Amino acid sequence: MRVLLIGGCGFIGSHIADCLLAAGISVRVLDKRPEAFRPPLDRVEYVLGDIQDTSLLSESAENMDAIVHLASTTVPTTANLDPVADVTGNLISMLRLLEALRGRPLRKFVFLSSGGTVYGVPDCVPIPEEHALRPINSYGITKVAIENFLFMEHRQHGFQNLILRASNPYGPRQFHTGVQGIIGTHLWRVAQGQAPEVWGDGSVVRDFIHVRDLAQLCYAALVSDYTGCVNAGSGEGTAIIDLVADIQRVVAASGHGEVTPVFKPGRSIDVPRVVLDIGKARQLLGWQPRIGLTEGLEETWAWVRGQAGAT
Amino acid sequence: MRVLLIGGCGFIGSHIADCLLAAGISVRVLDKRPEAFRPPLDRVEYVLGDIQDTSLLSESAENMDAIVHLASTTVPTTANLDPVADVTGNLISMLRLLEALRGRPLRKFVFLSSGGTVYGVPDCVPIPEEHALRPINSYGITKVAIENFLFMEHRQHGFQNLILRASNPYGPRQFHTGVQGIIGTHLWRVAQGQAPEVWGDGSVVRDFIHVRDLAQLCYAALVSDYTGCVNAGSGEGTAIIDLVADIQRVVAASGHGEVTPVFKPGRSIDVPRVVLDIGKARQLLGWQPRIGLTEGLEETWAWVRGQAGAT
Repeated sequence: MRVLLIGGCGFIGSHIADCLLAAGISVRVLDKRPEAFRPPLDRVEYVLGDIQDTSLLSESAENMDAIVHLASTTVPTTANLDPVADVTGNLISMLRLLEALRGRPLRKFVFLSSGGTVYGVPDCVPIPEEHALRPINSYGITKVAIENFLFMEHRQHGFQNLILRASNPYGPRQFHTGVQGIIGTHLWRVAQGQAPEVWGDGSVVRDFIHVRDLAQLCYAALVSDYTGCVNAGSGEGTAIIDLVADIQRVVAASGHGEVTPVFKPGRSIDVPRVVLDIGKARQLLGWQPRIGLTEGLEETWAWVRGQAGAT
Repeated sequence: MRVLLIGGCGFIGSHIADCLLAAGISVRVLDKRPEAFRPPLDRVEYVLGDIQDTSLLSESAENMDAIVHLASTTVPTTANLDPVADVTGNLISMLRLLEALRGRPLRKFVFLSSGGTVYGVPDCVPIPEEHALRPINSYGITKVAIENFLFMEHRQHGFQNLILRASNPYGPRQFHTGVQGIIGTHLWRVAQGQAPEVWGDGSVVRDFIHVRDLAQLCYAALVSDYTGCVNAGSGEGTAIIDLVADIQRVVAASGHGEVTPVFKPGRSIDVPRVVLDIGKARQLLGWQPRIGLTEGLEETWAWVRGQAGAT
């Protein structure tokens, strides 16, 4: 199988590339720049260019059996600042890509959606895929529209797609820009001698999935015949205050010293509690998360220290 | 109160203008062309221009207390043919308008959404507003995205809006292009000596609301303090085959002659059954539909005959 990874040089994409290569799959990556934390992989064909360029996307998809689409021009915290750019860069780009792909013999199109934003404030946790979609920010609204258009493409043109509604992925190679990825952001701050910042009282609950578990789920999605959406989380909720305690233990055990978080006022954009029901991914795709949070934190902390040159 | 009607020269807009004028409200209309079936109204200020022109919209909204937004660049049957145009013409335009309106002392923004498409294939009828939104065509997907952005604007900037999810409006002044409005299309065909066309076996059920009832609901929405969405239908389901029988009786009673429908293959785009639960509009806005289907058909038929010059 030959797979095109759109956005394959990013944090999640780099792990999916590893996972697919290990499974003997031929990988082409389209992204706007190379991976940030390691040199190009010998066995990957890289195409660097504008991921909003439909012609380039269409050419890159030539002779591919499947596509994994991970690219986004926005993140949740920035999308609200310019919803027109969010809709144009992500939704309109996707519609043009779908049109360009029509008639191609694609086996599968896997799209990375957002389990943390498409449901909005959930009626219940863990959240099943059938839960109403009531996104409260631009990022989630745009993801929902893309999901709906992917399903329309399936009904009208038989387009085989699988939508992964990811919760909060973390792990090695996560950027430390501070705009996305609370675990990466915390660990980078600690490595640089800064205090991790907790918004509100730390009672906000999130579902953290190790990026290699997410990559394995993406592989399962690619080889599955199912069309629809599945939640991609750990199925376990962790309060931010407990995450910080776990980070404190992991960092102390490494001999790095004490971690003291700084508490900041709560943010209105934070949904209080997001935990995804992952029963569908388990049953339909035979997948399950394998890396526990503490184990994942230890590994990620070791990687962050190595990158940051911390002792 | 001064109200701007965006798309106020269309079928629904013309009746809302009548209703607002009757209530002593000052009306400005922005539309791309004049009303099709009657001369300009003396008491309305008309601005003719491109409804996608944000500067023109923003200028037209100057000194207005409220806005009713009825304009759409697409209809359900055409939107699927060019989703990029649907998203650009409707969603992007709305985002630009919301940005331009930020900070204005607007009392209310009433938006005409689509009760027939935002819910997709319903789990139950009548459909309450809390029903999951699973639109299956571009028109509905775009309407849902606009609704979500209107609510986001409310949460972030206090924007007071009320969304009317209209079912199938009918009545005098409905265009007869054949692309939207089954009752108008049927009656115009009959007036011109053509057979009304029924897709499938006529078992498809729709909720027909007289356009003056919808206009009254729009007035109630304008003067209400409620922000949210309400269904705008009759609350009653009518199978197309029963609608045609009703049309046959009304036309026969007028002495026009016999109506024999032509049956065509069913369309995959038709949702089997849409009936809106209108309890929320009744309770929150003190509104109820007053014009029964047969009475409305008689009036609409008389108007169509007059327009078509039929005897």
